[in-house]
Amino acid sequence: MNWMYDSSGPMIPSTLLADTERFLHEQIPLSKAMGVTLESYDETQIVLSAPLEPNHNHLGTAFGGSLAAIATLSGYSLLWLLLGNPQAHIVVRSSSISYQRPVTGRIRAICEAPDSSLIQSFHAHFRKAGKARIPLRVTIEEEGLPCVIFDGVFVAIQS
Amino acid sequence: MNWMYDSSGPMIPSTLLADTERFLHEQIPLSKAMGVTLESYDETQIVLSAPLEPNHNHLGTAFGGSLAAIATLSGYSLLWLLLGNPQAHIVVRSSSISYQRPVTGRIRAICEAPDSSLIQSFHAHFRKAGKARIPLRVTIEEEGLPCVIFDGVFVAIQS
Repeated sequence: MNWMYDSSGPMIPSTLLADTERFLHEQIPLSKAMGVTLESYDETQIVLSAPLEPNHNHLGTAFGGSLAAIATLSGYSLLWLLLGNPQAHIVVRSSSISYQRPVTGRIRAICEAPDSSLIQSFHAHFRKAGKARIPLRVTIEEEGLPCVIFDGVFVAIQS
Repeated sequence: MNWMYDSSGPMIPSTLLADTERFLHEQIPLSKAMGVTLESYDETQIVLSAPLEPNHNHLGTAFGGSLAAIATLSGYSLLWLLLGNPQAHIVVRSSSISYQRPVTGRIRAICEAPDSSLIQSFHAHFRKAGKARIPLRVTIEEEGLPCVIFDGVFVAIQS
């Protein structure tokens, strides 16, 4: 897969965002059914969001499965962009999720990048072993209050 | 909501299955987008399944978010049917999931009913307090091998 680069070199950030979102929609069709969009990405965090309408439950709030799915997608996407290696596969190994308050509007999932020392260790391990794991936390907030806390362990594997 | 019963009394099991599936598709639209069907239910377990096609990831195996979502739906559905109280709301409070092997075909999630003593205690607490919680395990297997283990805590609330 060489979707992150074109012949003119690394893409500009806005193209990178659009291409990452297109990749998610094409490769993981549930992300399209959920209406997931990639709002922003920089070295510190990634933000994915989705409308409530295709993701509501029987109470009119966000379905727990949709919240788990968008949190998982956020971890995937951050790790993919941090790694910047089209020859890597990324999978989720395990996760835990705590539903603290219902989400009543647009779902907005924020995955913060880990400390730079952890990222460096992850990169070094991946280069040496062709495989490395990293824990990532995703939070979903509404009006400044935490609604969902997701902790996942993601693994990158040389393909 | 009075969807479980009609004027002639409790529905026969096949109607109950079809109505539960219709309820999921109408009230939780992601379940329809995923193609979730309710395969079977009895006092010991419920089985939900979904095709791989709308639920695959970038590797052609089942997406972790889809697996978390169908596991959550399985817990919801079992508890809803065990409770048999249309005046109850059910929500998931927390869950953890371990992805042990990739799922390469149709996803089949099995939620086993807890011990009868735990169910009786759950019923008694719900009647007394109007609220009760219960842990439920969901497994997703393929060719007899465990692929996904999901442990969720579900809460029923008198509406």
